[in-house]
Amino acid sequence: MPTCVVDRIFAYDMRYPLKEGAGSDAIHRDPEYCFAVTQLHTTNGQVATGITLTLGDGNQLVCDAIEILTRPLIGMDIEELMGDFGCFSKRVADDSAMRWLGPHKGVVHLALASVTNACFDLWAKRRGVPLWKLLLDLTPEQVVSLLDLSYLEDVLAPAQALEMLRAHWSSRPERSDVLHRGYPGYDTSVGWMAYDDRKVRELTQRAIGQGFSAFKLKVGSLDEGRDLRRAAMLRDCVGDAGTIMFDANQQWNLPTAKRITRLLAPFRPLWIEEPTHPDDLLGHVELARAIAPVHLAAGEHIPNRVMFKNFLKAGAIHFVQADVTRLAGVSEFITVSMLAKKLNLPVVPHVGDMGQLHQHLVLFNRIALGHEVFFLEHIPHLQSDFVFPAQVQDGFYKTAQEPGASSDLRLLSTQCP
Amino acid sequence: MPTCVVDRIFAYDMRYPLKEGAGSDAIHRDPEYCFAVTQLHTTNGQVATGITLTLGDGNQLVCDAIEILTRPLIGMDIEELMGDFGCFSKRVADDSAMRWLGPHKGVVHLALASVTNACFDLWAKRRGVPLWKLLLDLTPEQVVSLLDLSYLEDVLAPAQALEMLRAHWSSRPERSDVLHRGYPGYDTSVGWMAYDDRKVRELTQRAIGQGFSAFKLKVGSLDEGRDLRRAAMLRDCVGDAGTIMFDANQQWNLPTAKRITRLLAPFRPLWIEEPTHPDDLLGHVELARAIAPVHLAAGEHIPNRVMFKNFLKAGAIHFVQADVTRLAGVSEFITVSMLAKKLNLPVVPHVGDMGQLHQHLVLFNRIALGHEVFFLEHIPHLQSDFVFPAQVQDGFYKTAQEPGASSDLRLLSTQCP
Repeated sequence: MPTCVVDRIFAYDMRYPLKEGAGSDAIHRDPEYCFAVTQLHTTNGQVATGITLTLGDGNQLVCDAIEILTRPLIGMDIEELMGDFGCFSKRVADDSAMRWLGPHKGVVHLALASVTNACFDLWAKRRGVPLWKLLLDLTPEQVVSLLDLSYLEDVLAPAQALEMLRAHWSSRPERSDVLHRGYPGYDTSVGWMAYDDRKVRELTQRAIGQGFSAFKLKVGSLDEGRDLRRAAMLRDCVGDAGTIMFDANQQWNLPTAKRITRLLAPFRPLWIEEPTHPDDLLGHVELARAIAPVHLAAGEHIPNRVMFKNFLKAGAIHFVQADVTRLAGVSEFITVSMLAKKLNLPVVPHVGDMGQLHQHLVLFNRIALGHEVFFLEHIPHLQSDFVFPAQVQDGFYKTAQEPGASSDLRLLSTQCP
Repeated sequence: MPTCVVDRIFAYDMRYPLKEGAGSDAIHRDPEYCFAVTQLHTTNGQVATGITLTLGDGNQLVCDAIEILTRPLIGMDIEELMGDFGCFSKRVADDSAMRWLGPHKGVVHLALASVTNACFDLWAKRRGVPLWKLLLDLTPEQVVSLLDLSYLEDVLAPAQALEMLRAHWSSRPERSDVLHRGYPGYDTSVGWMAYDDRKVRELTQRAIGQGFSAFKLKVGSLDEGRDLRRAAMLRDCVGDAGTIMFDANQQWNLPTAKRITRLLAPFRPLWIEEPTHPDDLLGHVELARAIAPVHLAAGEHIPNRVMFKNFLKAGAIHFVQADVTRLAGVSEFITVSMLAKKLNLPVVPHVGDMGQLHQHLVLFNRIALGHEVFFLEHIPHLQSDFVFPAQVQDGFYKTAQEPGASSDLRLLSTQCP
């Protein structure tokens, strides 16, 4: 094969206005979905795309940070880069000026997500395979060399990570049926905050008709009666056998979360998501104890592996909503998935990527790490904006077959000019 | 008085190269001190300055974020703004697009620090008093209205904050002697990582001659023998009665921190600072228990009141190194100082502002909140760059008398053109 050396890099501020009410929640009332895009061009004519999500103003800040972070990529061969990506990623994240701006959080970490995701997209395209297959084709040693495991020594030292991958190696075929059956999805787009009752009911019925059996509802209304009414309606719509989840998007303080969660419990949610501020670790622990057996989920605003380690060790959450566009991309997502496996918690990603990359990653989690098959969030609003939109049929994500990480965007040319 | 309405706003990317070795530590080996500056101009000819610190690349990102955050300030009268600053600050921080980029951390929160500090500088200049006096002249109700206390309800509800201020009101005169005696400083500039032993010894002896009695040493060398040698030397230099502190700047993982801290304990440091990753709350708790009675300090990378609440509630640290340039400026610094007082912990700021604003804030903490007089970090490298550099004599910060927050920079004109 000819060498595949990165020779040009572009950052794009891509913005996608949503239809009225779509994407709205208690905190983000009128969001615009935006991607801060990293595009890598190579000497052999390949073009790769990495994305991270933001909600409008500030997307340009992430693009500007991408331009700083990608400087060391120019002139690197993708195979050489990915052969020691854990070290590369750590060096970029721990550059002392960048580190001061976090460390490992906020704008610079979102930028690192976009950059990392572009590197993995390029690597998979270079090898001509979808991301899930690229990852499954790696040896345990190669997987571990992708990861920055620093500050995790007390839970997941490199030797333990290696051991986890090896322990699941021979049983992979037993879990590979997921590739053929597909990965079950759940529908978040039925219950946005701004939707009126009729619309929620109609969308839920339509989604049931499309094969979905799990549905999310936004809660955290200023009028808590509205939350309760909508919760009752959704439970009624889906019947006793349906699965529903409630998402407060950080709206409540701790006393309010305790009180309202108790009122919502009779509708039997699988989880209550982001009940309060995502930095309030002890608040989550206290809440989880107070409202047991109701379960908590969080992750879309937990910025890095160290914070996740704390949430998982403390028993603060029951569902790990890691997001490849909030964490530092594919590699830190894998790290957090391994932490979760170590602590016996399921990973149910938050899809800041609209499920495009995560559809690959849940297959890796299932087959290589032995995670349970749970379900993957589905948000359809940007489907037509991707070159290869995730295909969901009868409520299941169909296994992607195109080379790469499925993150190319229609509006950006992916032909090398 | 004529109205004082903000009519022009500028963000400046100011960079100050340091002399060789100055500012170096285990993680930041060759820093450049940079301020992301907010400059407010008003209709009545006033000019105010807010600063936050970064270490080089990325300072421009913070400046760009300042431009976004300051949009709502145009046309506002400073008295009107500060009359309800807690709500204003919350509205800016919780704008849904900005919030996604944190929440309340990283580049956008650093920018909010700069903006907030400019507002307080303007307010104090407008009233013709130094910041410490401005704050002490406010009623308890007015102080509380400056603060965003959301997500703190379990520890510091508004009524409790008010009660704390009222409880210390009548005893203020007993604590006001600090205004005349000055506030004791400690010297960080003797023990930078890159300094050789002779330089550390010389600088320490000179600082002793200047009246200092407390000194900080950078540790976390790759060669731990070097840490131990330098620690022994510093203890020898300052004698049994001197106070020394060791600062690892996050270099260690948890097992390493436990091991090396035990080796450093015989030199009787007042604290070990930033032993590991600043997001590792449970790591700090475990370390603090393992190495008791050695004390821990942290804060320069603890980004907001919610994270501080967790560190303080958990018993993770013994010294609260809040920084007005990492937190969202003066108001969140006060919030964290009140949290610390509630939980009986001393506030010993990290001076990302080189002590310029903190010299005011420790006086407020002492007189209005009843905090102990401890000491305030002193880093002299940028003294000549401020219009009114903090004056330290015989090891004590002299109480600033100029109107404002002492943050105007010489290279930026503070005359309204």
